[in-house]
Amino acid sequence: MTDRPQTPTLDRVNSPADLKSLTDADLRRVADELRAETISAVSETGGHLGAGLGVVELTVALHAVFDTPRDKLIWDVSHQSYPHKILTGRRDRIRSIRQEGGLSGFTKRSESPYDPFGAAHSSTSISAALGFAVARDLGGVTPEGIGDAIAVIGDGAMSAGMAFEAMNNAGALKKRLIVILNDNEMSIAPPVGALSSYLSRLYAGAPFQEFKAAAKGAVSLLPPPFQEGAKRAKELLKSMTVGGTLFEELGFSYVGPIDGHDLDQLLPVLRTVKARATGPMLIHVITRKGKGFAPAERARDGGHATAKFDVATGQQHKAPSNAPSYTRVFADTLLQEAAADSRICAVTAAMPDGTGLNLFAERYPSRCFDVGIAEQHAVTFSAGLAAGGMRPFCAIYSTFLQRGYDQVVHDVAIQRLPVRFAIDRAGLVGADGATHAGSYDTAFLANLPGFVVMAAADEAELRHMVATAAAHDAGPIAFRFPRGEGEGVAMPERGEVLEIGKGRVMREGARVALLSFGTRLGETLKAAEALDARGIAPTVADARFAKPLDRDLVLTLARNHEALITIEEGAIGGFGSHVAQLLAEEGVFDTGLRFRSMVLPDIFIDQASPRAMYDVAALNAADIEARALDALGVTRLGKRA
Amino acid sequence: MTDRPQTPTLDRVNSPADLKSLTDADLRRVADELRAETISAVSETGGHLGAGLGVVELTVALHAVFDTPRDKLIWDVSHQSYPHKILTGRRDRIRSIRQEGGLSGFTKRSESPYDPFGAAHSSTSISAALGFAVARDLGGVTPEGIGDAIAVIGDGAMSAGMAFEAMNNAGALKKRLIVILNDNEMSIAPPVGALSSYLSRLYAGAPFQEFKAAAKGAVSLLPPPFQEGAKRAKELLKSMTVGGTLFEELGFSYVGPIDGHDLDQLLPVLRTVKARATGPMLIHVITRKGKGFAPAERARDGGHATAKFDVATGQQHKAPSNAPSYTRVFADTLLQEAAADSRICAVTAAMPDGTGLNLFAERYPSRCFDVGIAEQHAVTFSAGLAAGGMRPFCAIYSTFLQRGYDQVVHDVAIQRLPVRFAIDRAGLVGADGATHAGSYDTAFLANLPGFVVMAAADEAELRHMVATAAAHDAGPIAFRFPRGEGEGVAMPERGEVLEIGKGRVMREGARVALLSFGTRLGETLKAAEALDARGIAPTVADARFAKPLDRDLVLTLARNHEALITIEEGAIGGFGSHVAQLLAEEGVFDTGLRFRSMVLPDIFIDQASPRAMYDVAALNAADIEARALDALGVTRLGKRA
Repeated sequence: MTDRPQTPTLDRVNSPADLKSLTDADLRRVADELRAETISAVSETGGHLGAGLGVVELTVALHAVFDTPRDKLIWDVSHQSYPHKILTGRRDRIRSIRQEGGLSGFTKRSESPYDPFGAAHSSTSISAALGFAVARDLGGVTPEGIGDAIAVIGDGAMSAGMAFEAMNNAGALKKRLIVILNDNEMSIAPPVGALSSYLSRLYAGAPFQEFKAAAKGAVSLLPPPFQEGAKRAKELLKSMTVGGTLFEELGFSYVGPIDGHDLDQLLPVLRTVKARATGPMLIHVITRKGKGFAPAERARDGGHATAKFDVATGQQHKAPSNAPSYTRVFADTLLQEAAADSRICAVTAAMPDGTGLNLFAERYPSRCFDVGIAEQHAVTFSAGLAAGGMRPFCAIYSTFLQRGYDQVVHDVAIQRLPVRFAIDRAGLVGADGATHAGSYDTAFLANLPGFVVMAAADEAELRHMVATAAAHDAGPIAFRFPRGEGEGVAMPERGEVLEIGKGRVMREGARVALLSFGTRLGETLKAAEALDARGIAPTVADARFAKPLDRDLVLTLARNHEALITIEEGAIGGFGSHVAQLLAEEGVFDTGLRFRSMVLPDIFIDQASPRAMYDVAALNAADIEARALDALGVTRLGKRA
Repeated sequence: MTDRPQTPTLDRVNSPADLKSLTDADLRRVADELRAETISAVSETGGHLGAGLGVVELTVALHAVFDTPRDKLIWDVSHQSYPHKILTGRRDRIRSIRQEGGLSGFTKRSESPYDPFGAAHSSTSISAALGFAVARDLGGVTPEGIGDAIAVIGDGAMSAGMAFEAMNNAGALKKRLIVILNDNEMSIAPPVGALSSYLSRLYAGAPFQEFKAAAKGAVSLLPPPFQEGAKRAKELLKSMTVGGTLFEELGFSYVGPIDGHDLDQLLPVLRTVKARATGPMLIHVITRKGKGFAPAERARDGGHATAKFDVATGQQHKAPSNAPSYTRVFADTLLQEAAADSRICAVTAAMPDGTGLNLFAERYPSRCFDVGIAEQHAVTFSAGLAAGGMRPFCAIYSTFLQRGYDQVVHDVAIQRLPVRFAIDRAGLVGADGATHAGSYDTAFLANLPGFVVMAAADEAELRHMVATAAAHDAGPIAFRFPRGEGEGVAMPERGEVLEIGKGRVMREGARVALLSFGTRLGETLKAAEALDARGIAPTVADARFAKPLDRDLVLTLARNHEALITIEEGAIGGFGSHVAQLLAEEGVFDTGLRFRSMVLPDIFIDQASPRAMYDVAALNAADIEARALDALGVTRLGKRA
């Protein structure tokens, strides 16, 4: 890697302690070199880029001023933590990020004491920091001790209800706590919602440009606890009364807005806060996502996530794709359905691009709703739309739907409202690792009365399931599909409405029946071919529905085969458990059935290639073949054990 | 019922339409009679009293001014809906409320077109109302049409993140939407958090007493869209700029505060809003929980929920109890443990009394945290406490823990942080009905890697499990226990630490093993006695743990009996599914095992007595006995079928 940047100052920083002896001028050099190093590293690995570039100066300033890891620095979401990882003893591994056996793309407690609280989903940092602050004041003991608790949270993440709950609690508890609002007017997508426009007005009301001169040497103007003093300080630090900033109304002292790329502002403000803060304090920092790398700054999403790229041009190196992504098939099919039915509308929680609904928003802007990072509201808002006669598609990743689980139960399922849940990223997700795995949706949806739960075996099936969901007004319906490209199957022009609760037999065989739910069908069919070669020609079926189960199909398979194996990309409690329950109720086990249920294993699987993750999960064709042989009591050599 | 109140004016009101022809003076009479009728009804049935009494005038005013059910009136939580039910054609059934076959204690879509969106959990109303408002503007068709969308939400409920998410979205969408903030400074418990104190300051800043005179005949002072006009109107309706009320900063027009018990204020304000509102509008109404019934007004909780009572004295008629409640046993045991361990702290989400943590708060105020209606924050705050070296008990009802599910997965389980979850109201809950049933916790926790999931068979077991949880630092641990009184067993002085993942055999028998998880153990033992009488002496075991499973116990029971039956008070996907998975993996089904898994049925069970609900669920002794006989292929007459 001959074109790595020259980083003479950064090279002297092995841990945050090394920052303490540097001059402010040196810290500026560290920041510049850290930015170059971050760009260089991500160009080799791919990953989250824009968010990290936006907080380079903030990262340097925080570690220079605060005493990490004793002070607990908690990055919200933490996809902006690459510069933090470089500064905290992980520079030598930063080019392994998001790869199997390498650094996580997020903060992770098991990875470093500088990561006191891991993250990946948004808006958890204030709650966690408040927990540390309270633990500190109660004498809680940790290996590194507990000093300050600092949450760094973006303006998008601040719009989530959870952050508001934490602010509301922190403002009342009055513990010393530092929240840094990293306002880049951007989460993954440009932010939406009233809070975002409020922050813009706040920003407009007190442009930080004027502060720059004042901040230099003006630290003495910021008196404890920021409520008296010189004119400039008063202007910055508004008093806590009705009519203060929203944050002050929630009990926080407010400082800002300040320029998050200017260490001459960041360092004195953070030093003063560290020296003098008493209760909860919010520091409003304005940054630019993708700062300092022109291709990222230009991108609509601030260079949020990227493949490997050329540093000089920003050109990304993406492997050519052979099949459309599942996301794209969902999006295109929803457009087809929406063209024919004005009742169809769509809801996303701040993921218009990730869910493919950006296409829907372009075509049908009045029928597409990006509600912000607000899954709870997204679900119940969808329920309201359904009660109002619309046909809402609520498109949320499996892992994020966990945020709206109670609303799914309470507002959708109990009322049997026909909300259509499009569950993307169901199953293992590769480089994003365990925090983003969609492992639980089948289990937590399929035991809700009246729910219909489908999984697409391939992209053509997904098209049918979108059509099926569109037509289903009798109650809630969900369809899950994985991250990534489809299987490359022929696509039907239009989706057809599937019969609810009916699976399909893919091939007829004998002895063992392999019953797949979802995209492991391809591996299941491969396993069947391998079994053919051993003289065991299995039956293969695609269940399509975990709920309602195709009882006839399951019972027929069970009764006509020695062994029945279910295969799904989900945790225990889902499809296989429903099959087992049916078999038990019908007394099928009584006379002996070699039943096996292949599910995700009882571990959180770290980031790796999808293929490697399926190996860990033992859900590849060879695993299915082996399980079939084992169930039949046949060794790999073809004999009964 | 000779002592029912005289209600001559109310008697003329069969539906809200009848209010339209009444004078304002008549409406005041209706309100007074409606209050008397509500008190009288609840005195006969028990139920939620204080919240309904607080909104009597508001209920009358809303139905008099708006055009329900075309206008969608959505009561948040909806335990305050009894007066609404009386006015909307359900007066004849109001004395059946919360009883089997009677009216629900909450609003319910299937009960009345005047209940456009049911509720029971808090803070969903704004999301739902926004859904209706958007559906209306998109041409959504419902049987009653869609006019205005009105959410009535308490100040406690407003503190939940979900309400903030909805406000944030509504403020940006700018649809006509009416939110009535019913500010009684009380949810179930007195409210906590910074928002609450903010509202108090807002209230103090503009006392509505002064408004009373101005409001009479001053409607013309309120101009569209509430941004110009006379002095009083300006004072009431602050302009939308930085520094306005918090609600204005979120994009709402704000009116208030006004006296919610004064129809002379409510009626003109609502009429003006109806005539002239354009975008989202928040009306801040000050009410008193329990208003007009002295015993409720005096009560710390505003007479939140009550048994049957004497109208004259307020004296409640409670059946004497033979055993301490599970809640009380949990609370007392936690106090014991906390006395010996200063790391133990406790977190509740606005349910200090319901969870028993009021006792903890009295004894250890600095270690007890009521975070408000904020389950998401409660869970992650607990995770932060655990990361900070504390031993937090996070006490949340099963049904409300659904609100924090993602935080349980993402912040607790993935990080293996030792948060102790005390899951009260697990299983069926009687009069609160389907919305409060704790059906899913075992399923949604037991498939999380590293979690320990226990269920207490009786109150002595609960004591042991509290001690076990206190001692368990290796990762997250949860124990579930039901609503209501214990079984009356002898109580150990102190809880002992149970061996993780070990069940216990209650009685040794043959042929059939009954393996219970949780409080159905008593019924299971009764079933065993009935089976004894038939000459089938079963084995009975208490699993104690759904995770980790006691593999040895399960496999031994399976191998030594013809039949194995699991019994739990939870939905499919929980304990029985984990047992089935183990049996499948170990090949136990291969040679025939009469396995059955008794779980909650696949329906939402309406309110009834607990006994009746268990009959519906088929989880009583007779059901267990029948299932055992059926599994053995033995008829009730004792012969093989």
